[in-house]
Amino acid sequence: MASIGFIGLGRMGHAMSRNLVEAGHEVWVYDINPEAVARIAGLGGHAASSAADAASNRQFVVTMLPNGPDVEDILFGSPGVANAMAKATLFIDMSTIAPEATDRIATRLSRIGIAMLDAPVGGTSEVAERGQLLILAGGASRDVEAAAVIFDAVGRQTIHCGDNGTGTRTKIVNNFMSTALNTLTAETLAFAEAAGLDVARTVEVLAGTTAGKGFVTGAYQRKVLGGDISAEFGLGLASKDLNLALSYAAGLNVPLSVGAAAAQIYSMSKAEGFGGNDWSAVLETLRRKSALEPVHYPD
Amino acid sequence: MASIGFIGLGRMGHAMSRNLVEAGHEVWVYDINPEAVARIAGLGGHAASSAADAASNRQFVVTMLPNGPDVEDILFGSPGVANAMAKATLFIDMSTIAPEATDRIATRLSRIGIAMLDAPVGGTSEVAERGQLLILAGGASRDVEAAAVIFDAVGRQTIHCGDNGTGTRTKIVNNFMSTALNTLTAETLAFAEAAGLDVARTVEVLAGTTAGKGFVTGAYQRKVLGGDISAEFGLGLASKDLNLALSYAAGLNVPLSVGAAAAQIYSMSKAEGFGGNDWSAVLETLRRKSALEPVHYPD
Amino acid sequence: MASIGFIGLGRMGHAMSRNLVEAGHEVWVYDINPEAVARIAGLGGHAASSAADAASNRQFVVTMLPNGPDVEDILFGSPGVANAMAKATLFIDMSTIAPEATDRIATRLSRIGIAMLDAPVGGTSEVAERGQLLILAGGASRDVEAAAVIFDAVGRQTIHCGDNGTGTRTKIVNNFMSTALNTLTAETLAFAEAAGLDVARTVEVLAGTTAGKGFVTGAYQRKVLGGDISAEFGLGLASKDLNLALSYAAGLNVPLSVGAAAAQIYSMSKAEGFGGNDWSAVLETLRRKSALEPVHYPD
Amino acid sequence: MASIGFIGLGRMGHAMSRNLVEAGHEVWVYDINPEAVARIAGLGGHAASSAADAASNRQFVVTMLPNGPDVEDILFGSPGVANAMAKATLFIDMSTIAPEATDRIATRLSRIGIAMLDAPVGGTSEVAERGQLLILAGGASRDVEAAAVIFDAVGRQTIHCGDNGTGTRTKIVNNFMSTALNTLTAETLAFAEAAGLDVARTVEVLAGTTAGKGFVTGAYQRKVLGGDISAEFGLGLASKDLNLALSYAAGLNVPLSVGAAAAQIYSMSKAEGFGGNDWSAVLETLRRKSALEPVHYPD
Ligand SMILES: NC(=O)c1ccc[n+]([C@@H]2O[C@H](COP(=O)([O-])OP(=O)(O)OC[C@H]3O[C@@H](n4cnc5c(N)ncnc54)[C@H](O)[C@@H]3O)[C@@H](O)[C@H]2O)c1
Ligand SMILES: NC(=O)c1ccc[n+]([C@@H]2O[C@H](COP(=O)([O-])OP(=O)(O)OC[C@H]3O[C@@H](n4cnc5c(N)ncnc54)[C@H](O)[C@@H]3O)[C@@H](O)[C@H]2O)c1
Ligand SMILES: NC(=O)c1ccc[n+]([C@@H]2O[C@H](COP(=O)([O-])OP(=O)(O)OC[C@H]3O[C@@H](n4cnc5c(N)ncnc54)[C@H](O)[C@@H]3O)[C@@H](O)[C@H]2O)c1
Ligand SMILES: NC(=O)c1ccc[n+]([C@@H]2O[C@H](COP(=O)([O-])OP(=O)(O)OC[C@H]3O[C@@H](n4cnc5c(N)ncnc54)[C@H](O)[C@@H]3O)[C@@H](O)[C@H]2O)c1
Repeated sequence: MASIGFIGLGRMGHAMSRNLVEAGHEVWVYDINPEAVARIAGLGGHAASSAADAASNRQFVVTMLPNGPDVEDILFGSPGVANAMAKATLFIDMSTIAPEATDRIATRLSRIGIAMLDAPVGGTSEVAERGQLLILAGGASRDVEAAAVIFDAVGRQTIHCGDNGTGTRTKIVNNFMSTALNTLTAETLAFAEAAGLDVARTVEVLAGTTAGKGFVTGAYQRKVLGGDISAEFGLGLASKDLNLALSYAAGLNVPLSVGAAAAQIYSMSKAEGFGGNDWSAVLETLRRKSALEPVHYPD
Repeated sequence: MASIGFIGLGRMGHAMSRNLVEAGHEVWVYDINPEAVARIAGLGGHAASSAADAASNRQFVVTMLPNGPDVEDILFGSPGVANAMAKATLFIDMSTIAPEATDRIATRLSRIGIAMLDAPVGGTSEVAERGQLLILAGGASRDVEAAAVIFDAVGRQTIHCGDNGTGTRTKIVNNFMSTALNTLTAETLAFAEAAGLDVARTVEVLAGTTAGKGFVTGAYQRKVLGGDISAEFGLGLASKDLNLALSYAAGLNVPLSVGAAAAQIYSMSKAEGFGGNDWSAVLETLRRKSALEPVHYPD
Repeated sequence: MASIGFIGLGRMGHAMSRNLVEAGHEVWVYDINPEAVARIAGLGGHAASSAADAASNRQFVVTMLPNGPDVEDILFGSPGVANAMAKATLFIDMSTIAPEATDRIATRLSRIGIAMLDAPVGGTSEVAERGQLLILAGGASRDVEAAAVIFDAVGRQTIHCGDNGTGTRTKIVNNFMSTALNTLTAETLAFAEAAGLDVARTVEVLAGTTAGKGFVTGAYQRKVLGGDISAEFGLGLASKDLNLALSYAAGLNVPLSVGAAAAQIYSMSKAEGFGGNDWSAVLETLRRKSALEPVHYPD
Repeated sequence: MASIGFIGLGRMGHAMSRNLVEAGHEVWVYDINPEAVARIAGLGGHAASSAADAASNRQFVVTMLPNGPDVEDILFGSPGVANAMAKATLFIDMSTIAPEATDRIATRLSRIGIAMLDAPVGGTSEVAERGQLLILAGGASRDVEAAAVIFDAVGRQTIHCGDNGTGTRTKIVNNFMSTALNTLTAETLAFAEAAGLDVARTVEVLAGTTAGKGFVTGAYQRKVLGGDISAEFGLGLASKDLNLALSYAAGLNVPLSVGAAAAQIYSMSKAEGFGGNDWSAVLETLRRKSALEPVHYPD
């Protein structure tokens, strides 16, 4: 049984600390909201009187707070969790915060000899209730292994992303895509409705094509990520279709901000000479715009 | 066995007309490129001397041309396919063209008593080779049924989307989403690489979350399309995560045009009061921006 | 006194043809709206019975129609203005239409030996009333000179932009900037208001800086267009300020779509190594994205 | 003569502190870069050994540092400037920082009884050299008056924007517009060049229209800000022109990200029913998207 300090008992932290209690661990909980503390205490947890109190003499200290400044305050404000922790404590921040904040925290903790993991989670609070989160962990392998006792109680899968900072970065990149895709999905369905289409039938169609299924795996693996940009679906045709959609939508007064931004990337890609290549070659265009080393594709 | 005129023998038209010949139909083919004609003639098709020649006295005339102006030229230029067709001919345009063009064509053909289908296809040329296209048909039910003899030879599934124009519109909406998603995917992977992440491992993570799987079905069905916008994943949190990503990417000099456009839609949605609702409520925001009738969600 | 056919008597065409009549020319006018024709006839113009009628035997034929397809219809539909015009007639399209349409029209008219000018105008209908339009003319010098008799009656300044097509292109480029700037202005003022600022005082501030005055001339001439991208205002600082604005606006739920798109271009520019150069170096980034030949700046 | 602590002697701070020395003030300067300190000491300033040293016993303390975190560190780190200042000291931050940072600083200083101004500046380092900066000051009137002795030495004009925080906000809003306008200008000129136009002649045209002159004053004052959105230039026409530009540019492979974003706002505005109103009505659309109270225009 592990002794755990758990700070931040909101929608996520409540569910996670409850799962830890139910798994038989000794969990000292703290939140600025006393009712949140009382709820977990009522289920077998221990109420701590402050964050520092929750953190003293534990094997693990977990934070599940809204944002980076909250975690930095808790750690380095006064009285701070950083000073309260024993040298042997493993600090695990599971909040979704800015990578810059994770980096600062890792640096400051390492200076005082405390190991940490950044381990943000995938899944909603409902998934957290069921102990089925996806955990994206950044840090040393032995620390990820040591934390398995915690991760197994709150999640269904742990992916070790690399060194400190990679858990947070992977989470941010993942949520970048999902949150933007959410907007793209909404634009598409508003467009369908404004075009006079039956939305349910359109959803059925989308569900059967790359539009709905995505192509992070499959197409991308087969093509650009595999070093092959010969046309399976031509980038020029993709650009044509997208511009047809934008013109048509303009006539309907349907704003397609996300799609309009995408169309400009196709223009850049065609200007770079990728019009006759696979549409996944748009990645190569964006890589170059980001000053990443160009890949040399065979002619 | 049907008698078919087929005009446009490019990457798609070649494969489709070959499949029709192989299915045992009498196919008269035409393309401005004589070699393309010769290739199909060599496989058992009949070489027509002009588009009008290909179209005279056929049960079906199919066009698979680059864009709307090409189809309108072929039909209404001189000598035009429109005048060459018999009253009983069913005209089927399978090209991807602007909805406005489809509407004009349908109107002009109906004035001279000729039935038409707009039936653009989903799938690449490689899918066309295998006769496995997805056909999105707009027009009268009896015409879609009559065309089954053709659609079955070139495709694996036909979806009847509604009246004339809905096939084209469904295709445009579908490809809007897939082509924009392609760019979003590329932005995400360039971002991951610039953030120092292992791209292959990131792809693995994305593949397991909504980022990679999409949520046209599932989440959207369950929530906003079902009239429920209570938070499963809060719109405000989604917005926070997206803005964290944009700030971080700005520091890395990674352009995220698609994502930056999406972030503004979240701001609008929060300004409308949807911050505490499900992230799919962004659809309701976009519906209103498009002057679609607001849905009244229970409080 | 010139004999002029004038087609299209809307907000702009009414004012322009009136000015031509008042300048003492013989003007035959046509519009599908008979009331519009009657109004000019009442002021001394001649009512034509059709577009072709207005165009027969004139020195000049002017069109002022909504969009490109309207002009092409009038010219090449039946009975068409193209055939009605005498060889010596100078055709002048003053509508704002797509460059592709202007190019098609110029080509078809030149085949039948008729000279044309594309001469779209700058200025609102109120400016047209006062005969103070800006005329952007594309075509042969001698035709622009010949048309002075017309341009002087309706405008205050004629700029000869180059060959056929350059008038339309200059107009499209100009209005691209003004219409987008209008939105940027609106974003800025909505942002100011949401930030709790006094809008009138903010307008005063903007009016005194490059924000309100622009820098097409001045800064751009001095710097990037003159081959000098040494920092006057650093591109990296500009990018920092823009990102500060976007972060702050995100917290206020103010959508800044235009600004968010601009921020991505700065990221590209910094990734290309222009962070320490003048902010006008963003032009060099966009030139490269458009496949224009890079300029070699001294180090 | 005033006694002044000046912290941050970079491109701007060097010029400003030099102007203060030359105006005859006693200036104690500090920068982490000792050479920067030595340069001003060589001109008659006093070298301070730390930020706190520069700030002790002064009438004014000025900071001109890169960004918000730098200012907060200097003030509240240890040994901090906040504690070093006397109760009568007026603290003036002239850096461009996030409004949230300004607010936090103002609150913390007011708790310890120290008055502050946020007074960021407009103008480049070259303008700073000449003592011609524009000063945007937020804070109490009496403090702005007291600071005139400083502002007059470094600037040509001081605008008192309102309470603490409004200087920073005005600066951020102003630079939002200028930095985004810079990108729009670059898009326009790249577009002109790709369209085959003579760039110098295009610049001349732009300089004479709203494209180049802007319309923060004039048009906006006359129309939407004055409560009048009757069409001077119709929003629908503006939208048409912008979409013509985008279609044409797409064919040229010229990316117009800023313009494409703007086009979507026009779509929203037309969907709201403003198509027949003045193009400045786009402000009303954006105000509503930002949850600002709608203005009721007369019908
Ligand atoms: N909700 C989700 O679906 C979800 C999914 C994945 C990740 N996340 C991330 O998990 C984190 C937590 O999210 P949440 O939904 O539980 O948020 P929440 O707002 O429900 O909970 C945050 C909790 O932290 C407490 N808190 C704030 N400051 C504190 C302090 N200084 N000391 C002690 N307690 C403090 C609050 O009282 C609150 O109980 C966030 O970073 C979020 O982005 C959330
Ligand atoms: N390639 C794909 O993966 C794909 C997938 C789905 C839909 N589509 C759509 O299918 C249509 C055709 O695409 P494609 O890839 O076959 O294009 P393509 O360019 O390979 O072929 C077009 C053919 O039309 C011929 N053509 C052009 N004008 C003609 C005329 N006036 N008369 C006769 N023939 C003429 C050309 O010679 C050419 O052979 C397009 O609308 C495209 O958007 C393509
Ligand atoms: N209004 C402005 O402020 C302004 C400024 C600069 C440029 N422009 C451009 O000038 C052109 C005309 O604009 P407007 O504001 O006068 O438009 P409008 O809609 O007021 O007028 C167009 C006129 O053309 C007529 N018309 C349409 N089709 C016709 C046909 N087939 N035959 C004969 N007449 C036909 C209509 O009946 C109408 O009277 C447009 O291209 C516009 O973009 C307008
Ligand atoms: N340069 C311009 O054209 C311009 C125009 C208007 C506003 N501004 C704003 O003015 C501010 C300063 O800009 P700049 O161009 O002078 O920047 P800069 O980078 O040239 O100078 C910053 C100075 O601060 C010093 N510094 C950094 N951290 C310090 C610390 N902890 N203690 C002491 N000194 C420290 C640095 O050594 C450097 O000398 C910025 O906020 C900028 O956005 C700049």
